[in-house]
Amino acid sequence: MGEMEDLIELAKRRGFFWQSFSIYGGFSGLYDYGPLGAILKERVYRVWKDTYMGIGAIEIDSPSLTPEQVLKASGHVQRFLDMAVECTQCKTKFKVESLLDEKGIEAVPQTVDEAKKLMSGLELKCSRCGGKLGEPYEHHLMFRVDSTGEVKYLRPETAQGIFVNFRLLKNFNRDKLPMIVLQEGKGYRNEISPRQAIIRQKEFNMAEVEVFLDPDSQGIFQPTMNTIIVLHDMHGKNHEISIPEAVKTGIIKSVDHAFFLEITLRFALSIGLPIPRLRFRQHRKDELAHYSSDCWDLEALINGSWLEITGISDRGTYDLSRHHESSGEKMYIDGERFARVIEPATGIDRVIASLLVSSLSKRESGYSVLKLMPEMAPYPVAVLPLQKKDGLQEKALEIFQKLKLLEPYAYYDDSGAIGRRYARQDEIGTPYCITIDYETLEKNVVTIRERDSMEQIKGIPVDEILSTKGFLGNPVLNKFRK
Amino acid sequence: MGEMEDLIELAKRRGFFWQSFSIYGGFSGLYDYGPLGAILKERVYRVWKDTYMGIGAIEIDSPSLTPEQVLKASGHVQRFLDMAVECTQCKTKFKVESLLDEKGIEAVPQTVDEAKKLMSGLELKCSRCGGKLGEPYEHHLMFRVDSTGEVKYLRPETAQGIFVNFRLLKNFNRDKLPMIVLQEGKGYRNEISPRQAIIRQKEFNMAEVEVFLDPDSQGIFQPTMNTIIVLHDMHGKNHEISIPEAVKTGIIKSVDHAFFLEITLRFALSIGLPIPRLRFRQHRKDELAHYSSDCWDLEALINGSWLEITGISDRGTYDLSRHHESSGEKMYIDGERFARVIEPATGIDRVIASLLVSSLSKRESGYSVLKLMPEMAPYPVAVLPLQKKDGLQEKALEIFQKLKLLEPYAYYDDSGAIGRRYARQDEIGTPYCITIDYETLEKNVVTIRERDSMEQIKGIPVDEILSTKGFLGNPVLNKFRK
Repeated sequence: MGEMEDLIELAKRRGFFWQSFSIYGGFSGLYDYGPLGAILKERVYRVWKDTYMGIGAIEIDSPSLTPEQVLKASGHVQRFLDMAVECTQCKTKFKVESLLDEKGIEAVPQTVDEAKKLMSGLELKCSRCGGKLGEPYEHHLMFRVDSTGEVKYLRPETAQGIFVNFRLLKNFNRDKLPMIVLQEGKGYRNEISPRQAIIRQKEFNMAEVEVFLDPDSQGIFQPTMNTIIVLHDMHGKNHEISIPEAVKTGIIKSVDHAFFLEITLRFALSIGLPIPRLRFRQHRKDELAHYSSDCWDLEALINGSWLEITGISDRGTYDLSRHHESSGEKMYIDGERFARVIEPATGIDRVIASLLVSSLSKRESGYSVLKLMPEMAPYPVAVLPLQKKDGLQEKALEIFQKLKLLEPYAYYDDSGAIGRRYARQDEIGTPYCITIDYETLEKNVVTIRERDSMEQIKGIPVDEILSTKGFLGNPVLNKFRK
Repeated sequence: MGEMEDLIELAKRRGFFWQSFSIYGGFSGLYDYGPLGAILKERVYRVWKDTYMGIGAIEIDSPSLTPEQVLKASGHVQRFLDMAVECTQCKTKFKVESLLDEKGIEAVPQTVDEAKKLMSGLELKCSRCGGKLGEPYEHHLMFRVDSTGEVKYLRPETAQGIFVNFRLLKNFNRDKLPMIVLQEGKGYRNEISPRQAIIRQKEFNMAEVEVFLDPDSQGIFQPTMNTIIVLHDMHGKNHEISIPEAVKTGIIKSVDHAFFLEITLRFALSIGLPIPRLRFRQHRKDELAHYSSDCWDLEALINGSWLEITGISDRGTYDLSRHHESSGEKMYIDGERFARVIEPATGIDRVIASLLVSSLSKRESGYSVLKLMPEMAPYPVAVLPLQKKDGLQEKALEIFQKLKLLEPYAYYDDSGAIGRRYARQDEIGTPYCITIDYETLEKNVVTIRERDSMEQIKGIPVDEILSTKGFLGNPVLNKFRK
């Protein structure tokens, strides 16, 4: 089994995520976050938002229901399509891009003719039934919604909700540029073949940022990090280099664009994604979205393949000038100048998948352990009585109730053997377990066990573990950092 | 102007909320939260979630796209309708319930025949053009989504995403009852006549909780609060009473149900809604939703009318037994017993509207001040240099940058006269302003101004304001609480 399959099994069993509506057979491309996944998702969004709030971002929250005019102006109604083919026998639908990819051809056909040309001579067959594939056709990626009188779509990206509000936001920001606007929320794509659980869904969690720049003052943002990372350029060449160096050597053309690669990397490292699993890849000309003039993706290595988690796109003046034209409202900064836009757009579900996959490992004993950073773990701490009897349960509950006032995500478990309970906490990434035993009854001291080292430190006074708001900042944990 | 109209004006001007897609003329029933509204929404959700996490809730996050089977089982496909009429001349659509309400008739017709009967003899006319109204008809409240092969709807409530997962959640919870499951997220209703800005929208923010109880062990939850609140019962009678007393006297029938009225009240008070603006109202038999056997709404007084903000409904075994039947999967607790469900379902947008309206007041000077609880204010603190010159701006920015590391939502403003800047912060509810003046340059001390009293305390050392993580917990603020 690949690492993604291992994760999917664990995720369902322990409550990170699972396919939605399973009692009705499940529906492709729709997933729920269970109780642990919901907490993890909240933590990931928090770090992302804090990263951007730290550089002065403001937030907006616009609806998913989007009128046709908006998405015509943005070009989505006309161009947000995949080329698809259907098996003539079993009627399974395939994305042409994926079929080409399986044959080692990296190309994104934009029209039916292009698709035909690229497919010709490849003798493609249906991977499910071996049947003959039909002619390629345009498959629209937006969901259309029946609404009284007006045509609406479910937004394919949260970005347009920012662009259409440019004037109100600029007014809020007292006309100051650069202006950084973020939005978190759902995006919707009528995927031909959703796959790999939360990685490619019909409804997904986005975290988008639009950075509005004055086109005449470049270099407002300057990258500074020394971290070495792989940059895979549009010609397929790898560079192991820091981001500031990549600007100097011309691998990344715009310094402002480069800064947002760096911010993206900083976010990825803050949540605990490891450098060896990360790279930036520049889009080839033929795969650039219709609104983008240059794009670098932060990719994470999953199951041996590179997966896009953030696209940092240079949208230039595309969107604002399109809405300017379509709406008849002035979308200028001043005079007749349009702001220039950099967009770091993150797929939160893919971040979560990458984070879980890269954290999941096996002990020599064969047991799984989820080595999340303590700050990202759904439960920072679990309270476990050694046994239920002899007043240990009561004592443990008493300590737990007090701890929960200080650490709302503390967890309590008293069912089963203590070893099994440690294993359960290891598997969901809980970094610390507090064990209540006979010494607790006698001397009011507990044992703390650390997840990765499995080290146990005994004789820690209960008062000490209840001395701080939040458990992870407790100085008592320094004992594990010798 | 009514208080809601005052709020709508302020909300657009200062960035709390505004109609979506305004450059395309705006669309009824769709609103954006601007930068301040987005922060406020996050704070309201946080308090709500903490309230329930404090009593052991777990969270789930399910999609908005919902297959038809699920909503057939829940009864929404068949019964989630409003009776509507259309003006024969100008084609404006009206909700029959609203037309009856304007005539002083409190009734919710469930069928076309009922609507006809209730409307007969009232001589209703179109309120827009005075035209003749047509025959009543069924208007479906769900949005239908075109999706390859399958019929889907946008969920009208987040609740079904919890019910269909009952077994997986129960397994996660190790079969323990009571089990409290919460979900935050969007709900969608194709409203006939959206109105009052964020109060009645087509896409809205929900905060739903399903409490699964063992039907054979009632009274697990016990209300304890002494707070006196108005309970308006189904017969139209008002009781000024505490919730525990209301159980004793039989006004509220179920003690568990009563406990969740109390939790709802606790949440409302935690965010700063004032008791005189709150009441609980019991649903009349004719207005109960199809799944509900008893329901109390927490209502807030806005513009002289009572507005539902939370419905605390007894859904009994309705949903689980329906999904049990429809899916063929066993939805029992054990044996053949179904869990009994209490649902406190909150409309977050209405909470925000109520909170803003009840916080907005005018000074004698005529200026507006938004008296939010400090913990709810979008910006807990603003840093303002007295003037830009003489190094005051540099000093202020230096202090601000340090403060922002401790208080991410601190705000900085140096444009315009200091009096106008105070007024701007008052209007958006910032409880404290830190003024940097010539004394700051000389003695490294600042002035803090409190919003409601407008009191200013001088000579506070800069080190003191930078001594705590988060500004609102800073002991220096005790000086204002004499």
